[in-house]
Amino acid sequence: MSTWARQPPCVPTSKSVASRRAQVHGLGLIGGSLGLALRSAGWDVSGYDVNPSRRAEALELGVVDDLHLDRPSDVAFVAAPAAVLPSAVLFALSRTDGCVTDVGSVKSGVCSAVGDGRFVGGHPMAGSEQVGLRGARADMFDGAVWVLTPAESTSDEAYATVRSVVGELGAETVTMPADVHDSLVAVVSHVPHLTAATLMRLADERGTERAVLKRLAAGGFRDMTRIAAGNSDIWLDICEANRSAITSCLDRLIGALGEMRSAVEGGDRGKLSELLEQARRARTNLPVGAPADSDLVELRVPIPDRPGEVARIATLAGQLDVNIYDLEIAHSPEGDLGVMILVIPVEKVEVLRAALADGGYSPALGSLPG
Amino acid sequence: MSTWARQPPCVPTSKSVASRRAQVHGLGLIGGSLGLALRSAGWDVSGYDVNPSRRAEALELGVVDDLHLDRPSDVAFVAAPAAVLPSAVLFALSRTDGCVTDVGSVKSGVCSAVGDGRFVGGHPMAGSEQVGLRGARADMFDGAVWVLTPAESTSDEAYATVRSVVGELGAETVTMPADVHDSLVAVVSHVPHLTAATLMRLADERGTERAVLKRLAAGGFRDMTRIAAGNSDIWLDICEANRSAITSCLDRLIGALGEMRSAVEGGDRGKLSELLEQARRARTNLPVGAPADSDLVELRVPIPDRPGEVARIATLAGQLDVNIYDLEIAHSPEGDLGVMILVIPVEKVEVLRAALADGGYSPALGSLPG
Repeated sequence: MSTWARQPPCVPTSKSVASRRAQVHGLGLIGGSLGLALRSAGWDVSGYDVNPSRRAEALELGVVDDLHLDRPSDVAFVAAPAAVLPSAVLFALSRTDGCVTDVGSVKSGVCSAVGDGRFVGGHPMAGSEQVGLRGARADMFDGAVWVLTPAESTSDEAYATVRSVVGELGAETVTMPADVHDSLVAVVSHVPHLTAATLMRLADERGTERAVLKRLAAGGFRDMTRIAAGNSDIWLDICEANRSAITSCLDRLIGALGEMRSAVEGGDRGKLSELLEQARRARTNLPVGAPADSDLVELRVPIPDRPGEVARIATLAGQLDVNIYDLEIAHSPEGDLGVMILVIPVEKVEVLRAALADGGYSPALGSLPG
Repeated sequence: MSTWARQPPCVPTSKSVASRRAQVHGLGLIGGSLGLALRSAGWDVSGYDVNPSRRAEALELGVVDDLHLDRPSDVAFVAAPAAVLPSAVLFALSRTDGCVTDVGSVKSGVCSAVGDGRFVGGHPMAGSEQVGLRGARADMFDGAVWVLTPAESTSDEAYATVRSVVGELGAETVTMPADVHDSLVAVVSHVPHLTAATLMRLADERGTERAVLKRLAAGGFRDMTRIAAGNSDIWLDICEANRSAITSCLDRLIGALGEMRSAVEGGDRGKLSELLEQARRARTNLPVGAPADSDLVELRVPIPDRPGEVARIATLAGQLDVNIYDLEIAHSPEGDLGVMILVIPVEKVEVLRAALADGGYSPALGSLPG
């Protein structure tokens, strides 16, 4: 019988993470916040930006420790604009022997363009109405959801390292395939933004009534259109990078609004009531803040020792909305098999165990110490 | 030369308002808040509701002073559901010799159904996520915009009295025709609500991905869909009462989203940038809170002493976004001519003076005391 070398959580190789050096490429709002957050979690941070004056400003503001990219580092975060993202990731891969992740809002393009085992795509669902380095905040990611989109090629080590560092920044990881991410953010972010902008335009096109209309705009309208005030350049890149998911979601929205219009015009109270009630229930059930405290259990999943197994199982858990509180990988001394240890809420054990069994795994309940 | 008897602001006949008695018909969230707000402004309030237990509860909670509708009153507020609004207004007119106003979200129907000189339509742009009498608050209308929609038949006295009482509750009056109101609220309230509900439904229809999608829903999506959590019954009535303005606004929205979709699909950055920039500018210019303090001036407008003149001029000012800080009517002793005295911001004098001159009036600048 094999013996399992149980390692510290999410730290597959002790060598690399022991250095606790990180790189941040791109020093705007998100890159600057990453620098501050990493430093306040005890990391040494080297920064880079194509703009030399921004590099200098980052150093001056204490967002990074230094501007050297020639030291070993465990992880590099790439916070570059969408148009240059793949090349910025490749540049980062050339400057570190650790793993690399990015923070772009659209994931399929960069993940398929890179395909390096040390790369895992990421997207922190955080931001602010501020722009630029001076809006950076160390607590930007505290309590945020941070999506990871490992590809087939992503190594377990890269995935586990990024997951661990993101957790140190206070974020909650959700893992899913890049194309699923892109389709979901079209629904919860990109199309709502375009819709808010369109509603704001309709209001703005009322000619002489525009001024008085704006005085009628009460809380609901203000809430709905707030995001339309954001930087429009970013949205041009997003619309380009996520074109197909956005157009398909806009088609669904246009169709659903047409359905609503027919119900209003036909005075069909039954249909309208059904449409509005479905929305009301769904909105009421939108989770608020972090999930409630649960009793946690350990699920042990033997896995073949080949790349991508950890990401595959984490992705499955993500799609089932199973929040992974802790994740460890234990390798057998023989090197041909490992065990993935997942710490998850007790009420999710059955759904995940069934899905894993369907996928050919043989999960077993472990027990938590203490 | 005639002499003008200058009267206290907005109090055309001293007899009726001197009683400072009001009626509130319909004791839900808005009616209850009206009772509390009127009482805290020093009014005696008689309440009425078709539901006897709600009448009793209102009395017990101190929302009204009594339940008698047989005493003289200056003003009656009708806060009844849309379906029974016209008959509730007629009932109120039969129980007071003072003026009557309502608080419905749609104005054309009730205004054309009533047509009594003592009635003026109204719509306070206020509310809360609470429902029912126990959500009532005395400060509900403080700082809110309150639309008045006087008809041709509305008497100057009714308009001026309601305007004055609404001002006592802390609201800012904006006057416009009923059909203009209905078309504008379709744009800033009704269609945004239906759109929020539709976005929420699209998110809810993602099947097994629904749960994880909801965890991705960050601040922007939450802000946009918050109003979809509201009571859906009210919206069925609104959709029925404002059917034509809502369907026409939905048509414009669907068309504009189609335009957006084409720009995304065609990768037309120039067009997209134009659409998003227009929205960004409009949103950034949305006024926040009360207008800034201005120097005020007095504009004196001689008017023929016939019904509807005051409402006509106030409507014109509303459409030009001229905020009327004070409004008085002085009648000549001969009774054939009056002067309307408007206190308005100095920067709006020229636009209003020009519009009044175009309308056949002969406005003249007065001077403010002190």
